[in-house]
Amino acid sequence: MSKSISIFDTTLRDGTQGEGISLSADDKLKIAKKLDELGVQYIEGGIPGSNSKDIEFFKRVQQLGLAAKITAFGSTRRKDSQAEQDANLNRIIESGAQAATLVGKSWDFHVHTALQTTLEENLAMIYDSIAYLKRQGLEVIFDAEHFFDGYKNNPEYAVAVLKKAKEAGADWLVMCDTNGGTLPHEIGGIVSAFHASVPDANLGIHTHNDCELAVANTLSAVQAGARQVQGTINGYGERCGNANLCSIIPNLQLKLGYECIGEERLKQLTNTARYVSEIANVNMPVNQPYVGNAAFAHKGGIHVSAILRDSRTYEHIVPEWVGNKQRVLVSDLAGQSNIVSKAQDMGLDFDPSNEQSRKVIDKIKDLEHQGYTFEAADASLELLLREAGGEMKELFTFESFKMLVEKTAGQPVVSEAFVKLNVAGNNVYTAAEGNGPVNALDNALRKALVQYFPAIKEMHLSDYKVRVLDEKDATAAKVRVLIESRDISNSWNTVGVSGNVIEASWEALVDSMRYALLGQILNERDAEETPSNEQRGLVNH
Amino acid sequence: MSKSISIFDTTLRDGTQGEGISLSADDKLKIAKKLDELGVQYIEGGIPGSNSKDIEFFKRVQQLGLAAKITAFGSTRRKDSQAEQDANLNRIIESGAQAATLVGKSWDFHVHTALQTTLEENLAMIYDSIAYLKRQGLEVIFDAEHFFDGYKNNPEYAVAVLKKAKEAGADWLVMCDTNGGTLPHEIGGIVSAFHASVPDANLGIHTHNDCELAVANTLSAVQAGARQVQGTINGYGERCGNANLCSIIPNLQLKLGYECIGEERLKQLTNTARYVSEIANVNMPVNQPYVGNAAFAHKGGIHVSAILRDSRTYEHIVPEWVGNKQRVLVSDLAGQSNIVSKAQDMGLDFDPSNEQSRKVIDKIKDLEHQGYTFEAADASLELLLREAGGEMKELFTFESFKMLVEKTAGQPVVSEAFVKLNVAGNNVYTAAEGNGPVNALDNALRKALVQYFPAIKEMHLSDYKVRVLDEKDATAAKVRVLIESRDISNSWNTVGVSGNVIEASWEALVDSMRYALLGQILNERDAEETPSNEQRGLVNH
Repeated sequence: MSKSISIFDTTLRDGTQGEGISLSADDKLKIAKKLDELGVQYIEGGIPGSNSKDIEFFKRVQQLGLAAKITAFGSTRRKDSQAEQDANLNRIIESGAQAATLVGKSWDFHVHTALQTTLEENLAMIYDSIAYLKRQGLEVIFDAEHFFDGYKNNPEYAVAVLKKAKEAGADWLVMCDTNGGTLPHEIGGIVSAFHASVPDANLGIHTHNDCELAVANTLSAVQAGARQVQGTINGYGERCGNANLCSIIPNLQLKLGYECIGEERLKQLTNTARYVSEIANVNMPVNQPYVGNAAFAHKGGIHVSAILRDSRTYEHIVPEWVGNKQRVLVSDLAGQSNIVSKAQDMGLDFDPSNEQSRKVIDKIKDLEHQGYTFEAADASLELLLREAGGEMKELFTFESFKMLVEKTAGQPVVSEAFVKLNVAGNNVYTAAEGNGPVNALDNALRKALVQYFPAIKEMHLSDYKVRVLDEKDATAAKVRVLIESRDISNSWNTVGVSGNVIEASWEALVDSMRYALLGQILNERDAEETPSNEQRGLVNH
Repeated sequence: MSKSISIFDTTLRDGTQGEGISLSADDKLKIAKKLDELGVQYIEGGIPGSNSKDIEFFKRVQQLGLAAKITAFGSTRRKDSQAEQDANLNRIIESGAQAATLVGKSWDFHVHTALQTTLEENLAMIYDSIAYLKRQGLEVIFDAEHFFDGYKNNPEYAVAVLKKAKEAGADWLVMCDTNGGTLPHEIGGIVSAFHASVPDANLGIHTHNDCELAVANTLSAVQAGARQVQGTINGYGERCGNANLCSIIPNLQLKLGYECIGEERLKQLTNTARYVSEIANVNMPVNQPYVGNAAFAHKGGIHVSAILRDSRTYEHIVPEWVGNKQRVLVSDLAGQSNIVSKAQDMGLDFDPSNEQSRKVIDKIKDLEHQGYTFEAADASLELLLREAGGEMKELFTFESFKMLVEKTAGQPVVSEAFVKLNVAGNNVYTAAEGNGPVNALDNALRKALVQYFPAIKEMHLSDYKVRVLDEKDATAAKVRVLIESRDISNSWNTVGVSGNVIEASWEALVDSMRYALLGQILNERDAEETPSNEQRGLVNH
């Protein structure tokens, strides 16, 4: 029997049902790209036509040329109607997705209670809908909702539902534990029984974490014959979440020898998990298995000395296999290789054996300890590395900023910023208003720089995220600001950290502008190798 | 075979190895009392003599008269020495604990690598230590460290270790998956095999969550014959944590029919989980199974209308069985039925067919359109609903606030806020500094209110989140601020939306304080039904 598993990611659809998870179309496109790099086989993008974000997503994702198949989600046709006239089915077809995930009822109780129709009509709804989508050339993944509850209540009917879907041409039959209440031995038994009776069906599994068993239930189903696994990054999803792909993939691949995304791509797992949590703006639990910051952290003194003798004493896998690293309270060399590979990515000359490079590594580690994260702030990291290499001039000398927000009853709120800098030997003092404090700062800083660096007009801020780092202290805690900026052809990300959200924003803002003007503040040694400012059509100072 | 399971809680020992978890002696005593009320059979208090907190704990816990057995943790005697002369074993005896948890090696690799002794001497260390503690009248629980890794590497030796412990008089033989790397089918197989060969041994299971399988592994062991379960509240513990008793207990009791803590005490589970998270000062994941705030929360519109018809449609158990409750999230995906059920939860008279109720629904929809979200801001929604019902007085009349952030090169950033209000007919003008702008506003607003509402001192902000709503405009876009606040027994969430992050924060801050002081600003009609301010020991205005 094949040991190859199809990974079906539904972060963008079922994941967004999680409390506090809300993704824009841009967010969804970024995550889709990242999932494609990770090597998942299916990316479920949303429900076409349910809202404008999903419409935009399905339109724009086609231009990304991803290797993964994009799938659109919908229900079987309405009762007592024609599949061809069903608005939702037609929206799936119009979405341009290569595959459709079609959800249908397999629990007789739900057919009566939720659909309020007959068991026969439900079978017809499933058959007609799948057959219609197949005629349109789509791959069809049939999600049998509440399959295990249905099977326990009325096994004949639950089985008849899957057989009907297969008869209609469904490519995958996916058994869903929609309420998350089923136990691993039950899942294993039911999947085995069905698999034995219909050995040529392609089976999938979709579980929820209501009993803290979603990962185990998925493994049970795979061991019983399922070959598609549906889940989400970090287990996002309604109630207690969906099955967490970040634990399932390494369990299947490293522990059970199944082929999922391959050895090399598995190394991107930690980075993917953290990237998605940044985009979703949800803190990752520090103790998350495999990809959490504490997943391979050792606190106990005895453990640490044993770990230093032999990692296998207290580590079940090599952390680097999933792109994570060991953390112990002694100088660790794990982070270094990441920085070296980043520097090489940027085309920088970076030799970790020389003293200057070691200093940069120490500085970056110290900043990370303070709460900076460079995973989602490449531009800030590049500035740090170039600065350490002595490549850069200062954009300006900072003197001060002041930021005032004032609200009087019945009046609109007013934000003003005042910036005092020395730019190219000239004292500059500017003031500006804005919609909010950061906008006011942005405006005042631009005003100060534009006469010396007109290119600043070409760029603008395109995303702004704030994260409280230590929730315990709430408004007295440290915050991290991530800013995304764009010009006509590029986008870049910068970071700032401070106990004060305004100071953190200022830091990320300044980095954003330094990066935009990089060509003009590199020292001559480098300027010779990069296009000169004149060549780039920029005024030199 | 008995269906009764002994619950062994190690929150106070293994739980404190978790990153960010630190408990004082007072904290430990409070948690021990709570665990005793929950009905666990064993409470592992710590390592006697390892530090002054644990010494104090073991001394004071004896005065509490708990029903649970207190156990003290330690290792087998040092190699090549006498158990009677072993300082750690003697400290266990002196601690006054009724039971000892003795950890010993069962993986030959660890005997060689970590202990650096012979397999024979390790067996002697185990035998001597247990026999000595038994002679002193203690119950002895033997924790076989790395049992499953040991069994996979050298089954004869791992089994010999357990048999030696039994021979020495150990009351329980506990198999530990110390590195958390074992899978459920392996655990089940190994426990079954040992159980078949030594049927009269009392077996226990201790798992870690490194593969997100600790709960499943525990269930597997119980199904294979283990009758003691070791774990922690909320799964606290080193790396990815220990087995989470808050999921294991309901799974065993509600799903598999084992007797753990009884039906009545199970209703205290949610409260216990939240209490321990408060004492440990660790935020509980909203999606934690069984006891999390979102464990029975419903967001999707179709789900909600089915849930209102019959809860079993999307809930695997009745939430009240574990002391939790159903929550219907108000989100743009749902509609009126969600608001109605929310209002009913709050005990409000809310009939969607009357005009006033329809106006509130329209207002809420309009606010959602502006970017407010009430799914994560129950308290703001309740204030809105009560306000619409004419139930509330104003907390104060707003006049103005000013907020100033100033940063000069080489100086720390300074944040100041100035608040002008009319409270109970008095003009109040306060100024305060803070770590950041929102902290300064919080401080100034508290200063203004505290003389009229001393209860404000009891609450504090515990989480603060910022989200940019329309990324296209970045710093000129709308932002949504979510604030979580707490007092000793509750937590609540409020929301603010504005183009200005400071104004949005102000709005959420004010709602947070209004909600904290709700009892004092309800109109008389309601005040009659709720305890008066005097009854609550609060100053009336």
